[in-house]
Amino acid sequence: MVMERLLDRINSPADLKKLSVDQLPRLCAEIRTMLVETVSRTGGHLSSNLGAVELTVALHYVFDGPKDQIIFDVGHQCYTHKLLTGRRDRFATLRKENGLCGFPRREESPYDPFNCGHSSTAIPAALGVAAARKMRGEDGHVIALLGDGALSGGLAYEGLNNAGRFKGRLIVILNDNKMSINRNVGAMARSLAVMRTRKGYRAMKNGVESALNKIPLVGEPLRNGVSAVKGMMKDALYHSNIFEDMGFYYIGPLDGHDLPTLIRGLTIAKLQNRSVLIHACTQKGRGYVPAEKNPKDFHGVGIFDIETGEKKHASETFSDRFGSTLCKMAANDDRICAITAAMKSGTCLDAFSTRFASRFFDVGIAEEGAVTFASGLAQAGQIPVFAVYSTFLQRSYDQLIHDVAMQRLKVIFAVDRAGFVGDDGESHQGLFDCAFLTTVPGMTVYAPSYYNELDTMLHRAMYELPGACAVRYPRGVAPAMPETGLSGGTTDFDWLPAENSDLVLVTYGREFGRVWEAVQQLKAEGVNVSVLKLNCVHPIAPEAVKRACGGKKILFFEEGIRSGGIGEHFGGKLLECGYTGRYRLIAVPDCFVAQASADRQCEIYGLDPAGVAETVRREIAE
Amino acid sequence: MVMERLLDRINSPADLKKLSVDQLPRLCAEIRTMLVETVSRTGGHLSSNLGAVELTVALHYVFDGPKDQIIFDVGHQCYTHKLLTGRRDRFATLRKENGLCGFPRREESPYDPFNCGHSSTAIPAALGVAAARKMRGEDGHVIALLGDGALSGGLAYEGLNNAGRFKGRLIVILNDNKMSINRNVGAMARSLAVMRTRKGYRAMKNGVESALNKIPLVGEPLRNGVSAVKGMMKDALYHSNIFEDMGFYYIGPLDGHDLPTLIRGLTIAKLQNRSVLIHACTQKGRGYVPAEKNPKDFHGVGIFDIETGEKKHASETFSDRFGSTLCKMAANDDRICAITAAMKSGTCLDAFSTRFASRFFDVGIAEEGAVTFASGLAQAGQIPVFAVYSTFLQRSYDQLIHDVAMQRLKVIFAVDRAGFVGDDGESHQGLFDCAFLTTVPGMTVYAPSYYNELDTMLHRAMYELPGACAVRYPRGVAPAMPETGLSGGTTDFDWLPAENSDLVLVTYGREFGRVWEAVQQLKAEGVNVSVLKLNCVHPIAPEAVKRACGGKKILFFEEGIRSGGIGEHFGGKLLECGYTGRYRLIAVPDCFVAQASADRQCEIYGLDPAGVAETVRREIAE
Repeated sequence: MVMERLLDRINSPADLKKLSVDQLPRLCAEIRTMLVETVSRTGGHLSSNLGAVELTVALHYVFDGPKDQIIFDVGHQCYTHKLLTGRRDRFATLRKENGLCGFPRREESPYDPFNCGHSSTAIPAALGVAAARKMRGEDGHVIALLGDGALSGGLAYEGLNNAGRFKGRLIVILNDNKMSINRNVGAMARSLAVMRTRKGYRAMKNGVESALNKIPLVGEPLRNGVSAVKGMMKDALYHSNIFEDMGFYYIGPLDGHDLPTLIRGLTIAKLQNRSVLIHACTQKGRGYVPAEKNPKDFHGVGIFDIETGEKKHASETFSDRFGSTLCKMAANDDRICAITAAMKSGTCLDAFSTRFASRFFDVGIAEEGAVTFASGLAQAGQIPVFAVYSTFLQRSYDQLIHDVAMQRLKVIFAVDRAGFVGDDGESHQGLFDCAFLTTVPGMTVYAPSYYNELDTMLHRAMYELPGACAVRYPRGVAPAMPETGLSGGTTDFDWLPAENSDLVLVTYGREFGRVWEAVQQLKAEGVNVSVLKLNCVHPIAPEAVKRACGGKKILFFEEGIRSGGIGEHFGGKLLECGYTGRYRLIAVPDCFVAQASADRQCEIYGLDPAGVAETVRREIAE
Repeated sequence: MVMERLLDRINSPADLKKLSVDQLPRLCAEIRTMLVETVSRTGGHLSSNLGAVELTVALHYVFDGPKDQIIFDVGHQCYTHKLLTGRRDRFATLRKENGLCGFPRREESPYDPFNCGHSSTAIPAALGVAAARKMRGEDGHVIALLGDGALSGGLAYEGLNNAGRFKGRLIVILNDNKMSINRNVGAMARSLAVMRTRKGYRAMKNGVESALNKIPLVGEPLRNGVSAVKGMMKDALYHSNIFEDMGFYYIGPLDGHDLPTLIRGLTIAKLQNRSVLIHACTQKGRGYVPAEKNPKDFHGVGIFDIETGEKKHASETFSDRFGSTLCKMAANDDRICAITAAMKSGTCLDAFSTRFASRFFDVGIAEEGAVTFASGLAQAGQIPVFAVYSTFLQRSYDQLIHDVAMQRLKVIFAVDRAGFVGDDGESHQGLFDCAFLTTVPGMTVYAPSYYNELDTMLHRAMYELPGACAVRYPRGVAPAMPETGLSGGTTDFDWLPAENSDLVLVTYGREFGRVWEAVQQLKAEGVNVSVLKLNCVHPIAPEAVKRACGGKKILFFEEGIRSGGIGEHFGGKLLECGYTGRYRLIAVPDCFVAQASADRQCEIYGLDPAGVAETVRREIAE
C-alpha cells in the first residue's frame, strides 16, 4: 500500500500550518525525495536545497506569506519554498523553457518578493522593504535568508552595516552550512566556525533548549515568557560576536535540521521589534548520501543517476580547456596567478589550485575585491588571471575602470559563460560583457570560437599585449573546427571571402560556428556569402572593417546584447569609413533572456544556423 | 627674523629621518600652514589632510618608501605624503592642469604605489601587493591607509575578509576621524565608537603608553622588549573586537596626533609577520579652527579666505536645484525617498534629510548596497531616488541590471557630476555613465541642459515612466537658457532647424549650451546649421533620428566617452534608417581625462564653442 504523501496536501503555506509539528519530519523526508528525483532529471542546485528543507518548512510554519516576505539570497535554496507555495505540480518543469525558474521570480508567485540569482543581495533588499513598511506603517515581517557564502560578499556587509542600526522589524537568517560553493574562505568564515564551536552551541542544545521548550509552539507565545528566555540565551551564548557588535539581536547557533528548535527560534525572532539575526547550522546535501559525501559535486549539477549519484560524463568544455591551458602556462611562468570569486570548480581551477597552491586565490563571492586584489598583484609584477563568469564580472565594472585600466595594469580576465547560458535563465546570461568591457579604456577583448583559439588568445593576452585583456568564451563544448582557412586566433580577424558575393556576414565567438553552418547550407543552395570572423572584438582592426566594406550588404550576428555590443561598434566604424551600403545587426534586443536551452535561446533570437540562413535569404530576396 | 622652515630641508623621507622626534611637532605645524595656504588658493580636500599630518609624518619616519609601499584609500589624506616625498616645490600646482594630482598617482612619483580616488580599494590592493611580495620572497612592508568612512564600503570588507587570514606582512592603518564625509553611518561606525570609549583607550594613554616609552624610538627595538609590550597592550585594550575576530593583530586605539605613540605603534607593527591593524584616532580639520569647527564644510573645498574661513559664495548649481526640486516634490508625495552613499552635502540633500528625515537614507560609501536597498524600497511601493555622482554609480552596474532592471522596478537615479568634473581629474570624471546606463535593459536616460529641464525630467521620471530612469546633470552652474524654441524638457528632443542648411549638429546635456554658442557665432559668419538637442538620450526617439537624416552631414558632439556612448547609438540608428550622408562623432576618445578646468577639458577634446565652430567650418570646407 502506497501511503498518501503529506506533501500532496500542501497547496499553500496555510495547508502546511494544518500539520502538527510531529508530522513535519515526514514532510521533510518527502520533500527531499522529490528534490532528488526532480533534480536528477532536470539538473539544478541540489546540495544547498537539501540543506535548507527544515529551515524553509519552519519559516512557512511560523510566518505568513506572502504578507511576510521571505527574500532569498542567490536562490540556491528556494526549491522547498517553491514546493510549499503552490508550485509542486509544476516542479518537474524546473529550469525548462516556460517552466519554473531555478531562482525566485516575482513574475512566478506572490510568495517570491524579490528576484535574485547573484549573491549577497538579500540583506540590503530586505532592509529596503522593511524600511518602506515601517515608513508606511504597514505590518508584516521581512526575512532575508542567506547562506554563509553570501557573507563573503561586500554587498551583504553593506546590508548588515545598515541593517544593524535599523529601528524596525527585520529578520536575517544565516543558513550556515560551513561552505559556500567551494570551501568557504575568509575571516568571516573563521568567525562563524568560532561561534559554532563555542560553549554556547552546547548550551543551546541543553539548557537553553529546555527553556525554549516551554514556549508554546503555535500562536503568539507570552511576551513575558519570551523575555525571560531572551536573557538566558544571551548569557548562555558566546557573549559578543560580530553580529551583536553590528547591532543585531543574535539567536544561535541553532541546529538547522531540528524543527522544534527552529520553530521556537523563529517565533522568538518574530516578536522582536528590531533587527534579528538567526544563525542556523545545516548540512549541505542532507539526506542524499552522494551529496552529503561530496556536497560540492552536487552544488550545481546536471542530470544524474539517483542510485549511484553518477553523472553523465561530459566532454571537454571551454572551462576545462581554460583550466588545463592555464596550468601548462603557469608551469612555465611563475608570475602567473589565478583568482576566483568562489568559483574554483565552475571555472575549472581545481587542478591549478592544487599544483600552484601559492599562486591560487579564492577570495570568496567578492568580484569587486577580486579585481582590486588582482591589480595589486599586477602592480607587484605578477600576471593575475581572474577567472569569472561573464554575469558576475558585471559586479567589477568600476574596479575594471578605476583599479585596472586607470593605472594601465595588466590583468587578464578569463570570462567564462559568455553568451547564452541556458537553463539558469535571465540572472545568469553572459550577454553584457562585450557591451561593458568595450567602454573600459585600453581593454582588449578576445573571443575564441574553438579551443586552440582559446589557447592562442590566452598566450597573446599574456605576452603580446601591454594592458588589460579579457578572453571571453562560452559555457559548454566547442563544435569541431571547420576545415577552412582560420588562423587559430593568431590574427585579429579571419576573412573568408566567397566568389560572386556582395553579402558579408560578420560575427565572433561561438556564434561563428552557427554562421559557418548556415554558410555551408546556403552554399549548397547556390548562395555564396563572405564571412568576417572577429577574433579580437575590441578594438576592432581597421583592416577588418575595410574588408567588410567591400560588401553591398553587411549582416552582423551577435550572441550578446545589442545596445553597446560589438555590432554597434562595428557599425560606428563603418560610418567612419563612409560605408553607404546596407548594414543590419542581428543581436539580442535590450531585454532579459528567459531560461531555455542555449540552442533554443539562439533560435528565439534568430542566431541559430537556420535563423541565420533565413535572414540571409530574406536579405538577398529584398 | 624669519626662522628657516624644517619643511624646506625635506626633499625625501630620508631627510625626514634626520630630524629628532622632538622636532616633528614643529614640522607638522609647518605642514599644516602650507596645507591651509595652498588649499585656500587651489581648492582641494582640507579637513581630512589636516587630520592625517602626524600619521603621515610618523609613517615616513618609521618606514622606508618607496620599497615600503603606502597605499592610500580614496586619497583625501595624501597631501602631507606628497609634501614629504619630493613634491613640495610643485605643491602650488595641486589639482591644476599638468600639476600635482589631488590623489596618489603612480605616474607622478615612485612613492605613490597605487592610484585611487574611489573609496575602499586600499586593503584589497595592498593585500595583492603583499601576496605578490610573499610569493616572490621580496621584502618591504605594504601599508594600507584608510579612513573610517572607507570601512562602510563592501570592497574594504572584502579586503579585510581576505587580509585577516593572510600569512604574511600587511599593515592596515585605520585613520578614525569619527566621520567620513558627512556623519559616518552604520554598525561599523558604532563598533568603532565602542572601541574608542572602552577603558582600553584610557589604559593606552596611561599604563601602556609608559611601557611603550621604554622602546627605543629609532632603529629596531629589541624583539623581547616588544613582545612584553604586546601582551600588555592586548590585555589593556578591549579584549576582542571585530578586527581581532577577523584575524588581525590589533593595535589601538592610538592618539593619532601623538607622534611618539604613533611611532612606537608603527614600530611594533613593523615587527609582525602577519596582518596588523592599527587604529589611530584623529581629528578632522586639526589645527585650522574653521575646519575644526565645521570639518564637513572643509572636506572638499573651493578657494577660501584663510582668516575667516569664508568661501566664495557660489551661484545655484545643478546639485542645488536637484535638492530643492526634490524637496518640493517630496512635500507633495510621501512615497518619494532619497538615498545617498555618503554624499549628502555633495548631492545637496541636506535640506531633504532634515525635512523628510524618515525618508532619507545615508547608507555609507556603499553604492552597490544603495541600489539594492533602493530596489527593496521600490518593491514595497516607494519612489526611491538615489543621488550619486556619475563616477561612483559605476560601482552599481550589476545592481542596476540584476536588482533594478531585471525585476522592472522603478528606481530613479539622480546622476550628478555627469561629464567633465575639472580638477578632481581622471578618477572622478563622469564620462562613462551614458555608455554603461544604455546597456541596462529598460533604462531611460534624460540629460537636462538647464534647471527647468532638470525639474521637468525628474517629474517625467517619477510620473510618466514605468521603469528605471537616470537623470544626469553636470557639476556646477547652468548657463542662461537661450531664447529659442526649447520645450524645457517636456519633449524627448528639440529640433532647431536652420534655413538653407544641410548640416545638422546633434548633442545633449551641458554640451548643448556650447554647441548653441558656436551656432550663434557661425550664424554671424553667415553659416546656418540645424541643431538637434536630445533631452531623452536613451532610448533615442525614432522621430529625432528622422529629423537628423535630412542633413547631408551630421556632426554629433558628446561630452562623454566615445565607445558605447550616445553618439555611437545614434550612429547605429542612422545606419538602420539607411542614412547615406556623412556622420562624424566628436566625443572623448577612449582614455582617461586628466585634471584641468572643465572648460579646458572641453577645449582639449574640441567640445568648447570655438572647437565646435572650427569643426563645422572644416566640414563645410571639405
